[in-house]
Amino acid sequence: MSAPLTSTPRSDGYRMHAEWEPHRGTWLIWPERSDNWRNGAKPAQAAFAHVAETIAAAEPVTVCVSAGQYVNARERLSDAVRLVEMSSNDSWIRDCGPTFLVNDAGRVRGVDWKFNAWGGLEVGLYFPWDADDLVGEKVLDLERDQRYAPDFVLEGGSIDVDGQGTVLTTEECLLHGNRNPEMSRELIEWHLREYLNAETIIWLPRGVYLDETNGHVDNFARFVRPGQVMLTWTDDESDPQYEISNEALTILREAKDARGRELEITLVHQPGPLFSTDAEARGVDHVPGVQPRVAGVRLAGSYVNSYFANGIVVLPVFDDPHDEAAVETYGQFFPERRIVTVPGREILLGGGNVHCVTQQEPFGGHTL
Amino acid sequence: MSAPLTSTPRSDGYRMHAEWEPHRGTWLIWPERSDNWRNGAKPAQAAFAHVAETIAAAEPVTVCVSAGQYVNARERLSDAVRLVEMSSNDSWIRDCGPTFLVNDAGRVRGVDWKFNAWGGLEVGLYFPWDADDLVGEKVLDLERDQRYAPDFVLEGGSIDVDGQGTVLTTEECLLHGNRNPEMSRELIEWHLREYLNAETIIWLPRGVYLDETNGHVDNFARFVRPGQVMLTWTDDESDPQYEISNEALTILREAKDARGRELEITLVHQPGPLFSTDAEARGVDHVPGVQPRVAGVRLAGSYVNSYFANGIVVLPVFDDPHDEAAVETYGQFFPERRIVTVPGREILLGGGNVHCVTQQEPFGGHTL
Repeated sequence: MSAPLTSTPRSDGYRMHAEWEPHRGTWLIWPERSDNWRNGAKPAQAAFAHVAETIAAAEPVTVCVSAGQYVNARERLSDAVRLVEMSSNDSWIRDCGPTFLVNDAGRVRGVDWKFNAWGGLEVGLYFPWDADDLVGEKVLDLERDQRYAPDFVLEGGSIDVDGQGTVLTTEECLLHGNRNPEMSRELIEWHLREYLNAETIIWLPRGVYLDETNGHVDNFARFVRPGQVMLTWTDDESDPQYEISNEALTILREAKDARGRELEITLVHQPGPLFSTDAEARGVDHVPGVQPRVAGVRLAGSYVNSYFANGIVVLPVFDDPHDEAAVETYGQFFPERRIVTVPGREILLGGGNVHCVTQQEPFGGHTL
Repeated sequence: MSAPLTSTPRSDGYRMHAEWEPHRGTWLIWPERSDNWRNGAKPAQAAFAHVAETIAAAEPVTVCVSAGQYVNARERLSDAVRLVEMSSNDSWIRDCGPTFLVNDAGRVRGVDWKFNAWGGLEVGLYFPWDADDLVGEKVLDLERDQRYAPDFVLEGGSIDVDGQGTVLTTEECLLHGNRNPEMSRELIEWHLREYLNAETIIWLPRGVYLDETNGHVDNFARFVRPGQVMLTWTDDESDPQYEISNEALTILREAKDARGRELEITLVHQPGPLFSTDAEARGVDHVPGVQPRVAGVRLAGSYVNSYFANGIVVLPVFDDPHDEAAVETYGQFFPERRIVTVPGREILLGGGNVHCVTQQEPFGGHTL
């Protein structure tokens, strides 16, 4: 749709749905850039395909792919997955894609945020990002969903909602000078309230240690139902993550959601810590202007970076001693869903995980 | 859909619908190549946009566009038109796109023919055509319609059907050595019968004089309803078109359709003859390997190259003395439809007209 709506979702009665609400489907972008994904992106393509097929068993999946990778992607994906040509600069549709909204009548719209590759020219992760910035508009036009387009830089991974008026986010990201430096905290909060249709914003100071997104909340702390939040944790007091998670825990314990409820907080112990290997780093092309992948760097691994699809949870695991506890915890969160684990390391090497590479489109107000 | 069906539409009970049956929508491709469209394709873009908007007033329209032209096309099209990114080598979706099929239950499938740019490496109109050849698959996957993919070169403009088992086509095109040189006439007929679900094939020897498609039937003779065919005509006995049209008229008069009916033939006098001007030819880039556009060349103008959308007919006109009679004739063909004229010259300069740049997707067996 060419002309964006000039009203706001709040004024029009649209809200960002919670991820556990019924989906019409899921969107992903096919990975290909060899300066972020090792070995010509072949291991990442296998990992993304695994995620896509896992979700496709639960709900419709569309994978967006460049013209050059179309035939290759088609051969590596089953017929259950819809493939559509769409340019992008990398493969993080959580962050460059639209945020879908629903109203009480079950109609769907979307917010097409501005995207600047996690920080713009000076501290962003790559240049250019013009194709990424068009993904939101293209997805919404494909679906013929009407579009809001605020003059506001936001990645979908930097916010989390309970679907009932509460937003979780981090100061490290949203108040960073590389997103909306000209805006006050109040003006940023206004955008969240108006475009997500939210009442209450819970600010956590920081996200996962060394997360290159500037602490996206979706890798750190997320709602699993109204009133319940999971938080990445470590028992190791010498780990810098310990202080970060403790600080968030204190705030969450004191917080109330939009309906006035106190929050139940469940700690999910992190994997590792995990570090990239020499072999992994050597598989990535070094291109000036793109953040290099260096051997021995600590990876921002987290079990919080999962995805809730219809009837299932897709949970990244790392062949790590903490995997089992994470699976158990998720089973308690979602007794009615099947917890499906997928290998998470290849996606983590690129800078995110299952939640970062997916974007849910709500089914609307109708129950599936 | 990755794997094509290995059965045939005939065996599965699917048939090519007639264009006057109800549509789910119409597909077009945005023109851009400056070695076929004059003045950087800007006049052609205006003409295609005019066609798209005209049809969009009657039924859903999707325009496919390259990544590079996405923003430009979006700005030149209204919100009524859906825009999707899709690579192509030029903008003739009638010929490179899928042929849609329906069954009696109203389900839709498509045939994804092989495409070789109207003749392949030696006598085709351009190289490469790999992106064009993927358009059929991409459109069908977007719509999640199942796909047949015969090993058979065919352009949609080279066939016309009555929706009741009869196919009109030309020997000049289908028997040309540049399409399926290894196939006998019988094998070519087998493909038409199996993939269009047809009984009777009416072969006309040639199409419009100097038509660079090797005489596509959709520019020459088409069904307007079962049992009635319109035929491009000229009263000028010195025009090479006179003999071509007369020859076809004789055959059509003797032909019977799949239901055993004789055909009523209506002559539609051609415009012009029309010739390209110096200014028009000078606006086209000359690129080796692509058919050049030369001043003074006779253009294959025809009123038969129209498009039937829901409730309307889109008829190209040429500011020509024969325009008025064409409009009147169409009014007699389709008393229940509005005849909407559009300027046809810019599209004609590129080698076709309204029918060549459109592809209808049937609504299925349901009545709108």
